Amino acid sequence: MPLLTRIRGPRDLDRLSPEELVQLAEEIRSFLVEAVSKTGGHLGPNLGVVELTIALHRVFDSPKDKVLWDTGHQSYVHKLLTGRQDFAKLKQKGGLSGYPSQAESEHDVIENSHASTVLGWADGIAKGNQLLERDSHVVAVIGDGALTGGMAWEALNNIAAAKDRPLVIVVNDNERSYAPTIGGLANHLATLRTTDGYERFLARGKDLLERTPVVGRPLYDTLHGAKKGLKDFIAPQGMFEDLGLKYVGPIDGHDLEALESALARAKRFGGPVIVHCLTEKGRGYQPALQDEADRFHGIGPIHPDTGLPVKASGADWTSVFGDEMVELGKEREDIVAITAAMLQPVGLKKFADTFPDRIYDVGIAEQHGAVSAAGLATAGLHPVFAVYATFLNRAFDQVLMDVALHRCGVTFVLDRAGVTGTDGASHNGMWDMSILQVVPGLRLAAPRDADQVRAQLREAVEVDDAPTVVRFSKGAVGPAVPAVGRVGAMDVLREPGTDTPDVLLVSVGALAPMCLEIAGLLDRQGISTTVVDPRWVKPVDEAMAPLAERHRVVVTVEDNSRVGGVGSAVAQALRDAGVDVPLRDFGIPPRFLDHASRAEIMAEIGLTAPDIARQVTGLVARLDGTKEVDSVESARD
Amino acid sequence: MPLLTRIRGPRDLDRLSPEELVQLAEEIRSFLVEAVSKTGGHLGPNLGVVELTIALHRVFDSPKDKVLWDTGHQSYVHKLLTGRQDFAKLKQKGGLSGYPSQAESEHDVIENSHASTVLGWADGIAKGNQLLERDSHVVAVIGDGALTGGMAWEALNNIAAAKDRPLVIVVNDNERSYAPTIGGLANHLATLRTTDGYERFLARGKDLLERTPVVGRPLYDTLHGAKKGLKDFIAPQGMFEDLGLKYVGPIDGHDLEALESALARAKRFGGPVIVHCLTEKGRGYQPALQDEADRFHGIGPIHPDTGLPVKASGADWTSVFGDEMVELGKEREDIVAITAAMLQPVGLKKFADTFPDRIYDVGIAEQHGAVSAAGLATAGLHPVFAVYATFLNRAFDQVLMDVALHRCGVTFVLDRAGVTGTDGASHNGMWDMSILQVVPGLRLAAPRDADQVRAQLREAVEVDDAPTVVRFSKGAVGPAVPAVGRVGAMDVLREPGTDTPDVLLVSVGALAPMCLEIAGLLDRQGISTTVVDPRWVKPVDEAMAPLAERHRVVVTVEDNSRVGGVGSAVAQALRDAGVDVPLRDFGIPPRFLDHASRAEIMAEIGLTAPDIARQVTGLVARLDGTKEVDSVESARD
Repeated sequence: MPLLTRIRGPRDLDRLSPEELVQLAEEIRSFLVEAVSKTGGHLGPNLGVVELTIALHRVFDSPKDKVLWDTGHQSYVHKLLTGRQDFAKLKQKGGLSGYPSQAESEHDVIENSHASTVLGWADGIAKGNQLLERDSHVVAVIGDGALTGGMAWEALNNIAAAKDRPLVIVVNDNERSYAPTIGGLANHLATLRTTDGYERFLARGKDLLERTPVVGRPLYDTLHGAKKGLKDFIAPQGMFEDLGLKYVGPIDGHDLEALESALARAKRFGGPVIVHCLTEKGRGYQPALQDEADRFHGIGPIHPDTGLPVKASGADWTSVFGDEMVELGKEREDIVAITAAMLQPVGLKKFADTFPDRIYDVGIAEQHGAVSAAGLATAGLHPVFAVYATFLNRAFDQVLMDVALHRCGVTFVLDRAGVTGTDGASHNGMWDMSILQVVPGLRLAAPRDADQVRAQLREAVEVDDAPTVVRFSKGAVGPAVPAVGRVGAMDVLREPGTDTPDVLLVSVGALAPMCLEIAGLLDRQGISTTVVDPRWVKPVDEAMAPLAERHRVVVTVEDNSRVGGVGSAVAQALRDAGVDVPLRDFGIPPRFLDHASRAEIMAEIGLTAPDIARQVTGLVARLDGTKEVDSVESARD
Repeated sequence: MPLLTRIRGPRDLDRLSPEELVQLAEEIRSFLVEAVSKTGGHLGPNLGVVELTIALHRVFDSPKDKVLWDTGHQSYVHKLLTGRQDFAKLKQKGGLSGYPSQAESEHDVIENSHASTVLGWADGIAKGNQLLERDSHVVAVIGDGALTGGMAWEALNNIAAAKDRPLVIVVNDNERSYAPTIGGLANHLATLRTTDGYERFLARGKDLLERTPVVGRPLYDTLHGAKKGLKDFIAPQGMFEDLGLKYVGPIDGHDLEALESALARAKRFGGPVIVHCLTEKGRGYQPALQDEADRFHGIGPIHPDTGLPVKASGADWTSVFGDEMVELGKEREDIVAITAAMLQPVGLKKFADTFPDRIYDVGIAEQHGAVSAAGLATAGLHPVFAVYATFLNRAFDQVLMDVALHRCGVTFVLDRAGVTGTDGASHNGMWDMSILQVVPGLRLAAPRDADQVRAQLREAVEVDDAPTVVRFSKGAVGPAVPAVGRVGAMDVLREPGTDTPDVLLVSVGALAPMCLEIAGLLDRQGISTTVVDPRWVKPVDEAMAPLAERHRVVVTVEDNSRVGGVGSAVAQALRDAGVDVPLRDFGIPPRFLDHASRAEIMAEIGLTAPDIARQVTGLVARLDGTKEVDSVESARD
């Protein structure tokens, strides 16, 4: 990689010739395929923005100018060009984040990877630049998929209103988010894209010109300039200009000179402008291009030549859900499914293939997923909206005010709940069991194994007058954890072996094996423990308080923020019942978690069997002794 | 009201002549002015949709067809035409809701009044109709203001994608939400409105024709038909058609025949279609038309002739905040303010008048308000985003993932927090102190009086590396409640008068006077009580646990959902410190609250001094006696 290794920062790009830039792009693609094959990561999106990123950093002067990336998983090339070329531990503890990170670089601004935020950030920064009379540009890169999100619209509406506030929007149009982008906007972009054939024709002309030994550059530039003029005439101006946004495009997003020319014009314009770039997700890497599902959007480690996974993945939570949805769909014609642009990742592909009329992909639009579900339920259907747990935050108001207030039977299936690990702070699904507690009437299930996913999904879709939620973890599902008894509607996973047990251990969802391990460790200390899995964690089962009263200590363990989660709900239920047995609640501490493996994070925050067993042992010892209980805060951060 | 009183349901409209329909519209306007003058309510919006509502109910067959209202405060005329003409107790306990209500009528669907939801509902119902092959139409009425909300965009994108799914969108374009609508979309609608002059010209022609004694109807119809043809040719098609939506308009929203003609065409179309209607907020009522601020959007009781309030309003929480913002703005140039289309209601009008460059109205777009605030903070400013507490739910993900994760100094000022009463379930600000608990780093203040609003707002804007929140109630602010001491950073409002006090009463925000009253009542029972106001309820003050430990019982009282609120946070802080003093938490029960006055609701849910004092007395008595504590659940629902 003779050129890439010489790039220490964006300004090192300035002295490269056009031919060297093309070579650099090739080097970057090779680097990405090789590096991401080893670590896993977002390969397809980054292969698509190689030339775009180079052009951005040649035209704009980061960090004085702010280059902002929507859903920052498309920032790998940006990292390579801003002094970060050690990808050996990408997304691993101590390695580079999979997203921009302010701690990594002054060139990074937006760290999270919830889609459609970048235009809002850009609007705020542009307003600040204007008010502070700062000579600095803002350029926001957003995918066509992310434009389907409501936040993008709210921002466009604001950006377009200020004709004198410079802001460059680059629409990175690859016709997909995970899967092909849907909706009216996608159709409109397709219309704008009609000049694409013309673009390719000219691009071929450019190749021809450049290959000719005559002084090709001036000739090409002349033609290129002519092309631009012609294109502005040919291209339909469309809705962006209706809103008041200057539109430039469509631009071949793999043509460095066309990109630089368009971006430079946009930079000079002095007001809000959209540069519409056509890119190819997975560009230059055959295995990605041949993958119709998601073009290697996000991958685990693969063999770089074939694109095949290094290890075959076993049964995971998602596919257990996905298979059961097909069964349910066969049994009940009223069941329909909703995804927010993530058909495959949330496991609804089989359902969609089996019942093509009964699947709705709403785009990256969780709000619409929830509110249209309320409409579907009102019309007499039972929608199942499958979504990553962290993204449900986007639809909180709709779950509350549309689904719950109107007593609609809608089932939300929350995938990737709890600590997910390597994707960093914004992908951990650690909020749902807290914020959903306040929603009146909502019932929330946390299945502990595959059997329970199936069973609780079935129980959920039986409820037709309230929202139901089924939340489960990311990745491989563990072996079945059998119940040994029942109390109320709760499963007893372990009997204490005595009539005067010490500890009631309330296990939530996938943490059942860990809770059984804790009980085993306590047993060795002579502390008798009941382990109960409430299955439905909201509302708290009426049998909980009487059960708790028969123990000396109640301990809750959940894969969710400690704040306002299941532990708090159980504690409140006990207070309301006048049961003042001491309770200790273990969960995720109230802070954002850096990227690392799930196991590393769980160890770091003290959510391991030995840690919790030690805490509980100390507590019981103190109850035995002075009856005074010291702080157990340390292990919980 | 000879005609209005004969209308028992929509089909009674069928037999009225065009002249009678005009008379009916007049009767409805008189009724609205007279009725709403007495009770207060949303006057301006309803005066604007009289003809539109009549036309909708003539063309569509509710309840078989679904007529859906965005921000249901524009549904008064709909109520009058669907059998509900007793407005004497509008928005009062036992009277009509100020919004559609499924309990009131089979003609009502959407009950809440958070804006921009209607297109999502309509999309869901239309999908259901299609799947179930139901012969039923869906028509959604949405204001131009509500179109600025992201949910509307997400829905439009979905609706436009299904060319064969009938759905009628009526854009009720009065160029305002509360205040004039802002943004690129508003500019685009203005472009579409350019044929408005032409429309008025033809409307005048219509008057002329109708006044002529010749058989005017056929002649008018012919011309009218011609006008339509001509208009379709003249009107710019604009972004709606770019998205793939058939566009009809603009239509004079006070011309019954034009409305019926357009709606009938839209109904027949067989796919998604937008009918763009121009209406005048406050139509026909001079005091409203002369009010540039909000055209009598929502009013208290007024004198119907003059439009002047029946009673002058005293100092309220909003104006205390608004005045202090002006002072802060003078002292600190970096302070900017944000409103989501509610400049006046949230008290930012004075700030906007004083610092016109430092106020940003983002439209009905709470998500953008929050994320652009993150951008502004990143640029070096300190934004204060003032918003109703209940509407912050819309921006939960942005507060968490954009503001908090990026450690931005943004202050959210939550107005109308707690039980607000007459506006019903969707307007009570009872969620914020629960869901915001989970946001890492966020600090939350609940000022108890005007002095504390000013002081805590100042403390909030000093924080530059985390979100801060200041939340206060609706309406008149009570007299100052002085502190008699300090513990940690908490104000002691009442000392217990003994070294071995019984009860620690934790008072939140505006409930301070009630808590002092509770303490007085307990005192008479020989129960000594400390009353403490934490001021900052998140994080829980470190002095709380040691203070609690010196009491026998801790009681928390908050004007927020009991679930996951301040009580839960205090309880968790005590557990973490190993302080197992019994705690009882009083707040709003986890259910939606019907409309009634604040006092009526507080009494109904047991949030009164006598109720709480009785509960606490019982608890202390039991601790004195059997040490067993029974359930205190009954009084908390």
